[in-house]
Amino acid sequence: MYSFMNDYSEGAHPRLFEMLKQANLEQNNGYGLDDHSLKAKEYIKKKIGREDVDIHFIPGGTQTNLLVISSFLRPYQCVISVDTGHINVHETGAVEATGHKVVTVPGKDGKLTPEAIAKALEYHTDEHMVQPKMVYISNTTELGTIYTKAELTAISNFCKEKKLLLFLDGARLASALTCKANDLTLSDIANLVDVFYIGGTKNGALLGEALVLCKESLKEDFRYLIKHRGAMMAKGFVMGIQFEALFEDNLYFELGLHANQMAERIAEALHQGGYSFYATPGTNQLFPILSNEIIDTLAEKFVFSIQEKIDKENSAVRFVTSWATTEESVEALVKELLLYGAR
Amino acid sequence: MYSFMNDYSEGAHPRLFEMLKQANLEQNNGYGLDDHSLKAKEYIKKKIGREDVDIHFIPGGTQTNLLVISSFLRPYQCVISVDTGHINVHETGAVEATGHKVVTVPGKDGKLTPEAIAKALEYHTDEHMVQPKMVYISNTTELGTIYTKAELTAISNFCKEKKLLLFLDGARLASALTCKANDLTLSDIANLVDVFYIGGTKNGALLGEALVLCKESLKEDFRYLIKHRGAMMAKGFVMGIQFEALFEDNLYFELGLHANQMAERIAEALHQGGYSFYATPGTNQLFPILSNEIIDTLAEKFVFSIQEKIDKENSAVRFVTSWATTEESVEALVKELLLYGAR
Amino acid sequence: MYSFMNDYSEGAHPRLFEMLKQANLEQNNGYGLDDHSLKAKEYIKKKIGREDVDIHFIPGGTQTNLLVISSFLRPYQCVISVDTGHINVHETGAVEATGHKVVTVPGKDGKLTPEAIAKALEYHTDEHMVQPKMVYISNTTELGTIYTKAELTAISNFCKEKKLLLFLDGARLASALTCKANDLTLSDIANLVDVFYIGGTKNGALLGEALVLCKESLKEDFRYLIKHRGAMMAKGFVMGIQFEALFEDNLYFELGLHANQMAERIAEALHQGGYSFYATPGTNQLFPILSNEIIDTLAEKFVFSIQEKIDKENSAVRFVTSWATTEESVEALVKELLLYGAR
Amino acid sequence: MYSFMNDYSEGAHPRLFEMLKQANLEQNNGYGLDDHSLKAKEYIKKKIGREDVDIHFIPGGTQTNLLVISSFLRPYQCVISVDTGHINVHETGAVEATGHKVVTVPGKDGKLTPEAIAKALEYHTDEHMVQPKMVYISNTTELGTIYTKAELTAISNFCKEKKLLLFLDGARLASALTCKANDLTLSDIANLVDVFYIGGTKNGALLGEALVLCKESLKEDFRYLIKHRGAMMAKGFVMGIQFEALFEDNLYFELGLHANQMAERIAEALHQGGYSFYATPGTNQLFPILSNEIIDTLAEKFVFSIQEKIDKENSAVRFVTSWATTEESVEALVKELLLYGAR
Repeated sequence: MYSFMNDYSEGAHPRLFEMLKQANLEQNNGYGLDDHSLKAKEYIKKKIGREDVDIHFIPGGTQTNLLVISSFLRPYQCVISVDTGHINVHETGAVEATGHKVVTVPGKDGKLTPEAIAKALEYHTDEHMVQPKMVYISNTTELGTIYTKAELTAISNFCKEKKLLLFLDGARLASALTCKANDLTLSDIANLVDVFYIGGTKNGALLGEALVLCKESLKEDFRYLIKHRGAMMAKGFVMGIQFEALFEDNLYFELGLHANQMAERIAEALHQGGYSFYATPGTNQLFPILSNEIIDTLAEKFVFSIQEKIDKENSAVRFVTSWATTEESVEALVKELLLYGAR
Repeated sequence: MYSFMNDYSEGAHPRLFEMLKQANLEQNNGYGLDDHSLKAKEYIKKKIGREDVDIHFIPGGTQTNLLVISSFLRPYQCVISVDTGHINVHETGAVEATGHKVVTVPGKDGKLTPEAIAKALEYHTDEHMVQPKMVYISNTTELGTIYTKAELTAISNFCKEKKLLLFLDGARLASALTCKANDLTLSDIANLVDVFYIGGTKNGALLGEALVLCKESLKEDFRYLIKHRGAMMAKGFVMGIQFEALFEDNLYFELGLHANQMAERIAEALHQGGYSFYATPGTNQLFPILSNEIIDTLAEKFVFSIQEKIDKENSAVRFVTSWATTEESVEALVKELLLYGAR
Repeated sequence: MYSFMNDYSEGAHPRLFEMLKQANLEQNNGYGLDDHSLKAKEYIKKKIGREDVDIHFIPGGTQTNLLVISSFLRPYQCVISVDTGHINVHETGAVEATGHKVVTVPGKDGKLTPEAIAKALEYHTDEHMVQPKMVYISNTTELGTIYTKAELTAISNFCKEKKLLLFLDGARLASALTCKANDLTLSDIANLVDVFYIGGTKNGALLGEALVLCKESLKEDFRYLIKHRGAMMAKGFVMGIQFEALFEDNLYFELGLHANQMAERIAEALHQGGYSFYATPGTNQLFPILSNEIIDTLAEKFVFSIQEKIDKENSAVRFVTSWATTEESVEALVKELLLYGAR
Repeated sequence: MYSFMNDYSEGAHPRLFEMLKQANLEQNNGYGLDDHSLKAKEYIKKKIGREDVDIHFIPGGTQTNLLVISSFLRPYQCVISVDTGHINVHETGAVEATGHKVVTVPGKDGKLTPEAIAKALEYHTDEHMVQPKMVYISNTTELGTIYTKAELTAISNFCKEKKLLLFLDGARLASALTCKANDLTLSDIANLVDVFYIGGTKNGALLGEALVLCKESLKEDFRYLIKHRGAMMAKGFVMGIQFEALFEDNLYFELGLHANQMAERIAEALHQGGYSFYATPGTNQLFPILSNEIIDTLAEKFVFSIQEKIDKENSAVRFVTSWATTEESVEALVKELLLYGAR
């Protein structure tokens, strides 16, 4: 059975594997101070178009989120997120474990707006309440939607005006930056946010997120902070080598594009079949609404998850594609989807 | 220049690499719920000789330490460690970050004794002081020494009597269990301690520590605890596959043995050359005391670290061997050591 | 100007003052181990009708809340509260500071229901989300409403069935238990919840909340937990003496009754004047909706707070009465309210 | 039996009591924003001789310590203390509960020196270890000793040079500043340290420590930090009124002086009797070494604590005097001490 369960079912893209193998018996410095990590950082800086950012490789997304949020807030300060945000729902309280409240606001298609942030600010007026100091967004969002340049710029301007740090979770940034509707570049993002990360785990690496500190004041002592949270890997070069492979040319973006193209093919079939969507399609996560009957039939041949029960007879499901998704499997799914249609 | 800096300079042992490659395009369940992780756990249980332990793969040592200590203590309880313990010195306060004090007692050759623990207990008498509830030891210790079966049994009995949890950090357990003076088996350890881990990172894996929960009451909801601390890897199978390779036969122990044999050859030369030692040699870490002159000369050809300045003219250095250490490099170091001698 | 701002504007009820004075030059044991504290606990146990509860005096409400919640949850577990709950809004993240998420559900008139708790449980299904383990309610609620015996019993039964700890914040318990609609006794509460507190600060004491641990398994080492959070007062007897005064006869309830009667008189005038309410009146907090014009006029003579803007022309305000509220001030307010009416 | 157990056995000095009573039925603003607190702060500022400090009243010492330390350190930073420091031994891990390690160095007569701090700094060299950022001292120390102006100046200069914050715990500052050997003023202290507190609980108040923030950068949002740790009292005016009484004239110092004079009388007798001391006497805590026989005899008439067993036949005990210690009780103790003598 082919799985559209997630984008981390397979190992590493072959080119990353090859480079890991080549470097395998080299002796590297520990803790991310090796030449591969240095080179990878240079490649990423070049793609960003800025030399003045600091880059650190962190093993996983939840760990990166808790690390960033706890590093830059004072104890009484909170982070604002949409209610569907990963940090709010799917991290088992990892942010609160560092002492900080996640203040949530309703999202629009999984996205945050300056208006929503403004409401949270209005509500938090004095020392009897937490003080909002950081805004957390993700691109793509948990619902597979993306921020346009105009939207991100609006949030960025608002945050600057209100002295809020803007943090972008880019676990699926590859998919965001290579989807059809996207008009943002890596460089734009670095200029609009204070800190973000470029997800490796969900785009072809065995593990690793490249955390980019764009704001000068965030850089100090960051290696202490990484170690303090248990996120400093002895063999940091394992992440360094993979990001070297992803960024020495355009591989990172090619992998994101492939995932999107696979999803697009499925989305076309869904549109064609007259299915409706729980969230606007466009990247590597699709959330069509299917009847229970169709879901049961598909589940005999494919693996995927139920997002939410819509009513007695229908549920939103989630199909995820990745750098590793094969055309054969997509065609097989497409065939089934067209066979049943929405009606 | 050849490096004796540590045991995590190289990537993975070729057999692990091969198995990672074979499985690379398989679709695996996420978060450690894959078949490789299951199989690896079965292999390890067989080596331990017990089916009733729970095993979880955690990315790194500091993270495993903070996870274990914070999971099993109530807020006001502390862990006892020797003053040279890794959790006390080299983890940037990662344990305290979870809210728990590390109470230290002086070690003997890096090791803890029931007497030392007893002193800490006597001192902590009431609710104005933290309550000792866990004992942390490591095997090998930070000074490369090991616990004999008698020593570990004595500590284990003492802990049971005093209702203290016993936690063994086995980041270098492979070296401990395969060194000449060792009389402990993996099975002994599982029976004597409440929780321990089998280090992968320092014995041939890209990353990963196999945490073994031996005591029934520690098992409940442990996956929640892993996720809560950001230690649950999306691609948990990357660790599962490697532990599968290490434990399907005797590879884990063979790699430890190799590291020890390489260290032994160097230790022989040091003895022969009349050098003295900062800590009893016997495993893959050696701490000879060398004159500054010799240190400077060696530093032109080899990489290693200074452990501690002994006096104006001498320092203790640290040489570490690993599964990847080559005989050529050892012979080259031996040659130099014999050339200068201690006098 | 007379203040209806809150119920903690004045010092201690004269009888408490008298007893503090009498005991002032006695030599008492420190840290709450004095005879007055013992006696106060005995008095409270008698009112509760149970000898098998443990009682501790804690300086303030926020501190009691953070202490209780952090003491009885494992790191990955959360507490469920209505969105208007004090711990969620007005404690500057004090609960999250101990590492725990507050999961909120919508309230009905400030109150929680088994149905709302059930929804939160349904949503939190696996280790990627926090695990609900405690339910937090307050009586009276933040909106001055109360739980009936039937309502509290329903929540209690539900919590028992789902193995959730039930914690009742009784900062304003005196008002709750002496209001007209109340059908709960102190004894009922002790039998229906696992832990609760009897607020002193808002009912005639200089400071102090009497925390009652009803469930056997919660009692162990609680003094360690108090000290650990900085909540153990050197002069614990200052709280002990005051609770002795409040509970040696019926003073605690008399003070609550007085506050309610004062509020009732105001509520009558509000009803008479045709004003509507933001939340059902009945205890010592009233939330009438007034026109901005009336608010401005009243604000020249009285101090009170704005709860929420309702529309352009009207806001809900909050009037609070207490053990110290004088009839004169109430009559003065009543006179004004009747003068203007709602229309 | 008269107790020399501690300096918090009695309630408040009568003058404080009187002022509490006078203000009892006034309506005050909540949370420390009342006129009494304002006036008290003005009085204290006048004694300090500086208008540019911020003052906050905090209920207890442990809470003040954990609040200060957690407010001004980043997560990976630690505080340095002597091993006998109150935060290290007698606060049940309250500082670690906020995530910070207490790094200890050996003290001299309970006191810290620049040399000892320097050693701790030398040891903590990189991101694998916590980063020292604050120095904690107390005056008087846990052993009743004091810092001279020269000593405090040396530490202050050293801290400034090394960019360490200097925090002075003044739970017993009254005794320190009024003892014979003292050459420091309140003003000196404010100029030499970054943050300190003036203990009320142990010098005549029911509760309360006056925290003084001397350094500009520490002041921001401090009320958020107080609330966040549960240390903001609804009836903050209860502390405000008492500090008003202590500082409107010289009462605070008179009370300290009385305690010292009582101790002095006992110390004279101890000297006369030929007893030796565990720590240099001079303030309101005395630590004579007595034979077990004498201890047993004294224990029939007086309450005091055993500090430490010295050998089989002798122990150091602790006698504490306070503002409330009567001459009669001192004379009774003196009589006994002279009766037995040390030999």
